[in-house]
Amino acid sequence: MTGLAGTNMGTAPYVIGMDLGGTKILAAVVDAEGRILAEAKRATGASEGPEAVIKRMAGTARKAVRNAGIEWNAVTGLGVGAPGPIDPEIGFVYNPPNLPGWDEIALGPRLSEALELPVFLENDVNLGTLGEYALGAGQDTKDMVGIFVGTGVGGGLILGGELRSGFRHAAGEVGHMIVLADGPVCGCGKRGCLESVASRTAIERDIRLGIAAGRQSLIPKLVKQKGRLTSGVLAKALRKGDPLVTEVMGRAQWYLGLLAASIVNLVDPEMIAFGGGVVEALGKEFLRPIRVTARQHYIQQSGADRVRIVAARLGDHAGVLGAAVLARRRTGSDPR
Amino acid sequence: MTGLAGTNMGTAPYVIGMDLGGTKILAAVVDAEGRILAEAKRATGASEGPEAVIKRMAGTARKAVRNAGIEWNAVTGLGVGAPGPIDPEIGFVYNPPNLPGWDEIALGPRLSEALELPVFLENDVNLGTLGEYALGAGQDTKDMVGIFVGTGVGGGLILGGELRSGFRHAAGEVGHMIVLADGPVCGCGKRGCLESVASRTAIERDIRLGIAAGRQSLIPKLVKQKGRLTSGVLAKALRKGDPLVTEVMGRAQWYLGLLAASIVNLVDPEMIAFGGGVVEALGKEFLRPIRVTARQHYIQQSGADRVRIVAARLGDHAGVLGAAVLARRRTGSDPR
Repeated sequence: MTGLAGTNMGTAPYVIGMDLGGTKILAAVVDAEGRILAEAKRATGASEGPEAVIKRMAGTARKAVRNAGIEWNAVTGLGVGAPGPIDPEIGFVYNPPNLPGWDEIALGPRLSEALELPVFLENDVNLGTLGEYALGAGQDTKDMVGIFVGTGVGGGLILGGELRSGFRHAAGEVGHMIVLADGPVCGCGKRGCLESVASRTAIERDIRLGIAAGRQSLIPKLVKQKGRLTSGVLAKALRKGDPLVTEVMGRAQWYLGLLAASIVNLVDPEMIAFGGGVVEALGKEFLRPIRVTARQHYIQQSGADRVRIVAARLGDHAGVLGAAVLARRRTGSDPR
Repeated sequence: MTGLAGTNMGTAPYVIGMDLGGTKILAAVVDAEGRILAEAKRATGASEGPEAVIKRMAGTARKAVRNAGIEWNAVTGLGVGAPGPIDPEIGFVYNPPNLPGWDEIALGPRLSEALELPVFLENDVNLGTLGEYALGAGQDTKDMVGIFVGTGVGGGLILGGELRSGFRHAAGEVGHMIVLADGPVCGCGKRGCLESVASRTAIERDIRLGIAAGRQSLIPKLVKQKGRLTSGVLAKALRKGDPLVTEVMGRAQWYLGLLAASIVNLVDPEMIAFGGGVVEALGKEFLRPIRVTARQHYIQQSGADRVRIVAARLGDHAGVLGAAVLARRRTGSDPR
C-alpha cells in the first residue's frame, strides 16, 4: 500500500495529483515511486462559481508543494480528476451535476496558465481506477475494472493497460448499467440502474421504508447515537445481526454480483476491484457473497477462478494517486 | 458492402476466412481489398467427432481455393472463427456446447499442419464483429460493439481499433449480461440474461405461451403455411399488425435498448451494430425503438447523437470476412 512518505524526500521527478469533488479539493505531491510526499485539502465552495474554485485549486496545488518541502520547479505536471462530463483532450468541463455553473469551463488550460505546468484532466472515478491499477489492488494486472460503491456507484475500466476513457469520454458508468429493468427509479430518472438497487442511497431507502412500515431494526437506536445512517452504522447493525439490514444488504450484494458478472461477460477483465465508502466500512466480508453470485453468472466457467474480485486498497487516496499516475504517464516519465 | 467478386481475380495476397458452426463449415477466399473471390460450404457433421470435422475443414479450405481459381501458394494465411471456449494464443478449442467431444482440441495447430499455412483462431462472434468493423457497418469507426440476435444473442467488441478478446478470451457475451434480475430462466440456467428476454427463442416462447393461453394471433395460420416460426414469419405478422407479436417484439426491443444503453454506459463506444437473423428479417425498422430506448438510458446525454446504433451490413458473410481480416492482420498485410 502506498502511504504518506512523511519527511522522506522521495524520488524525483514529482507530479501533483488533484481531485476536484463537489465538497472538497484534494491535492497530493507524488514521487516517481508513487509515494505521497505531502497533501493539501480545501473546501470546494462550489456555490461561488468556477472562477473562485479554479483559484482555490491552484492554491491547493501550491500548498501541497510547500507542504512537501520541494521546489515548485521540481514538479513536472499536474493530473486532475473532475466529475464528468469532461473532454480530456482539451481539458474542458461541461456542467457536472455537483458543480453548478460550470458550463464549458476550460479547467485544464486555466490551471495550466495559472501554475505554468502541463495539466491533464480525466474523469475522477476513471482516475480512481487508474490509481488502483497502477499503485493499488491491480498492480499485477493488465485489465481491471473499478467499482466504487458510495452514495452513488461509479467505476472505471483499464483494458490492456490503457484507461478506457470512451468515445465521448463517458465510459465506466457502471452505476447506470441496467440490472433490473423496470425496477426502482434511479437518481438519474430512469429505472433499474444498478445505482437504484445497490448504492448506499438505495440501501438507506429500503431500510427506512422497512422501518416506516413497522419492521424491527436496530437502526433507529444506532442512528440516534451516531447522528446519521453512515456506512459505519450499517456495518455495526450487520455485525449485530439486524434482520432488516441483513436482508437489504444481501439484496444489494446480489445486484452487485450480477453487475460484476455482466461486466465479466462483456469485457472479461482480469480483476474487478470494489472500493468506496460502503465497501471500506464493511470490509472484505462484504465481497464474499458478491464473488459467489458473480462467478455463478459467468457464461464461460472455464478459467473462472482466475478472474479476481478484490477490495480496492487506496481508500480516499485512489483519486489523487490516479491523477498523479495520469500526469506521469502523459509527461512520459512512467511506463505503467 | 463487400460481395462476391465473381470472376474478377482480386488483389493478392489472398487469405482464407473460415467459420466453424455447429451445423455448417463456411470458407471464403478473400483478397487484399476484402472482396470474396469464392466460397465453399460443407455440413459440419459434428456427431462424427473432431478428427472428421478437422479433415472436412481442411477440405473446405482447399475447395474454396479451387473455386477461386488461384494457386494454393498464393494464400498467406487462414483465419478461423470457432465457438468458445477457445484459446486463440495456442489455437485450442475447449468443449463448445454445440461441438460434442471437442475436449482440448488443437484445432489451430492441426489445421496449420494439414494445410501448411499459418492459422489464427478466434471466437466466431468476435470475428463477425471484426468483419463488420473492418469491411461492414463500422468501416469509419475506431470503436464498435456488435450484437447479433438470433436463436441466442452474441456479440463482440472492437475498442480503439483492437478486438477485445478478453483475459480468458471470453469477452463479448452480451447475451448473458443481466438486464432483468430474477427474470425468466435462460438457456444457460441463470435468470434474467438478455438472451432470456430478447432472443428469438425468448420471443417464440412468449408468443407460444400467449397463443396457448388463448390470445388472438395470426401466428398459427402463418406457421401452418411456412412450417415453422422463422424470423420471416415474425416479420410478416408484424407487418399485418398482429397484436400479440407486436407486444412481444416490442418487449424484446425494449430489453435490447436497455442492453445497448448498459454497454454505452460501460464502454462508451462509437457504434453499436445489430445483426443476426431477427434483425435481418425485420429490417431497419426494428432498430428504431431500440435506438430511442438506448438513448434515453445513456447517463451522459452530451454527445448522445454521435453514438450510432445501426444495422450490420455483411449478413451471413460477417464471420468469414472477419476471419479473413484476422488472418490478414496477423500476417501483417493489413493495417485495419
